[in-house]
Amino acid sequence: MNPGEIAALTFDVFGTVVDWRSSLVREGEAFGRAHGLTVDWVRFADAWRGLYQPMLERVRSGSLPWTKLDDLHRMALDRLLAEFGIHKLSEADVDHLNRAWHRLEPWPDAVAGLTRLKRRFVLATLSNGNVALIVNMARHAGLPWDAVLGAEVARHYKPQPQAYLTTAALLGLEPRQCLMVAAHNGDLAAASKVGFRTAFVRRPTEHGPGQTTDLAASQSWDVVAESFIDLAARLGC
Amino acid sequence: MNPGEIAALTFDVFGTVVDWRSSLVREGEAFGRAHGLTVDWVRFADAWRGLYQPMLERVRSGSLPWTKLDDLHRMALDRLLAEFGIHKLSEADVDHLNRAWHRLEPWPDAVAGLTRLKRRFVLATLSNGNVALIVNMARHAGLPWDAVLGAEVARHYKPQPQAYLTTAALLGLEPRQCLMVAAHNGDLAAASKVGFRTAFVRRPTEHGPGQTTDLAASQSWDVVAESFIDLAARLGC
Repeated sequence: MNPGEIAALTFDVFGTVVDWRSSLVREGEAFGRAHGLTVDWVRFADAWRGLYQPMLERVRSGSLPWTKLDDLHRMALDRLLAEFGIHKLSEADVDHLNRAWHRLEPWPDAVAGLTRLKRRFVLATLSNGNVALIVNMARHAGLPWDAVLGAEVARHYKPQPQAYLTTAALLGLEPRQCLMVAAHNGDLAAASKVGFRTAFVRRPTEHGPGQTTDLAASQSWDVVAESFIDLAARLGC
Repeated sequence: MNPGEIAALTFDVFGTVVDWRSSLVREGEAFGRAHGLTVDWVRFADAWRGLYQPMLERVRSGSLPWTKLDDLHRMALDRLLAEFGIHKLSEADVDHLNRAWHRLEPWPDAVAGLTRLKRRFVLATLSNGNVALIVNMARHAGLPWDAVLGAEVARHYKPQPQAYLTTAALLGLEPRQCLMVAAHNGDLAAASKVGFRTAFVRRPTEHGPGQTTDLAASQSWDVVAESFIDLAARLGC
């Protein structure tokens, strides 16, 4: 790949830019203290994220009409609160907990790396997160996006091809001018299939110390990097 | 209006944030010098912008399928180049001239005012400009948008209600939580009709020294300001 052909970097967000698991655990523990709850928040966070792909699949398959991620998170949360025996929360409290996804913390290298990359490339999100979630997260975490695109504006969840193709079209670019950045081989495979260039950034603790998936690049992606700083260096920024 | 109810400011861009006329004239003059052309660029700029509403109206009325603004600008430009007797330009040169809209300069108060406003409010564009145009303009001019929304993501040109309502929905907000900022009374009237709050910012030289329209607020909008700095002060930023 010639970096000179790349005009925009499009980013997966959950796991690639932000550390959702540690952030949710921290949010859960603070929430638990404030409400006098005894909950295993690590198990809670993993269970919540565990419902993510099944929920998306209901939308992708058409069994659920288009539903934004905030609302899918809330459906999953309501179910988990019952399963974990957490009752008597006000609507405002449940909504606050659901919006923990708007307050996720970036990986330590993310802001510095994005800031370097932004000097040369358009930076757009290509996440399954809805626009408001990603916008609020960016304001919270200081993520310098040029554009928040992805699933909600395409009304298709990744890895459906429309999520990628609509994002490239809105950027006024051909897919080959877009470099998809993700910590997930599956996301890169789907992006590559519609013509995107691909950059794998290793996030070996996204799922905690015992992570078994996406520990290494599964194909010869255009770029493989250890962090966003490393990605910037490899792209000549 | 209680500023505490407002969560996002949504901005008209051409004329409100950027001075399209002076910028196009400057671009045209530089282009003319580089290509040895003798053209009245003030007349050219006004003619180009003069074709804007008729072009949009063809899309709004359905006589033209959805077409992004870059492509409408190009259709108008091709026609004007012929009318002004400008021939023998390469495709790359015509494309460069068409992208003058991506390089418009902000009004002197815009960046400082937006920077203040951003501390408290989500800042989104609600322009008829397509996403790539507004993103490139933001990078050129240093405009700190949180989100680039508006006509292209809604696939409806202002003042059609869907342009406003889709933008509010993507921000996860009720229309009454959005303050539409524009130098054009008609834009504010359409936004107000679907429940947005309204801020008129006077730009009395948008159309040059002889401007006759939008010199003053035509209704009692929620806020009337002389600049983005003044707007920030009036909103308590």
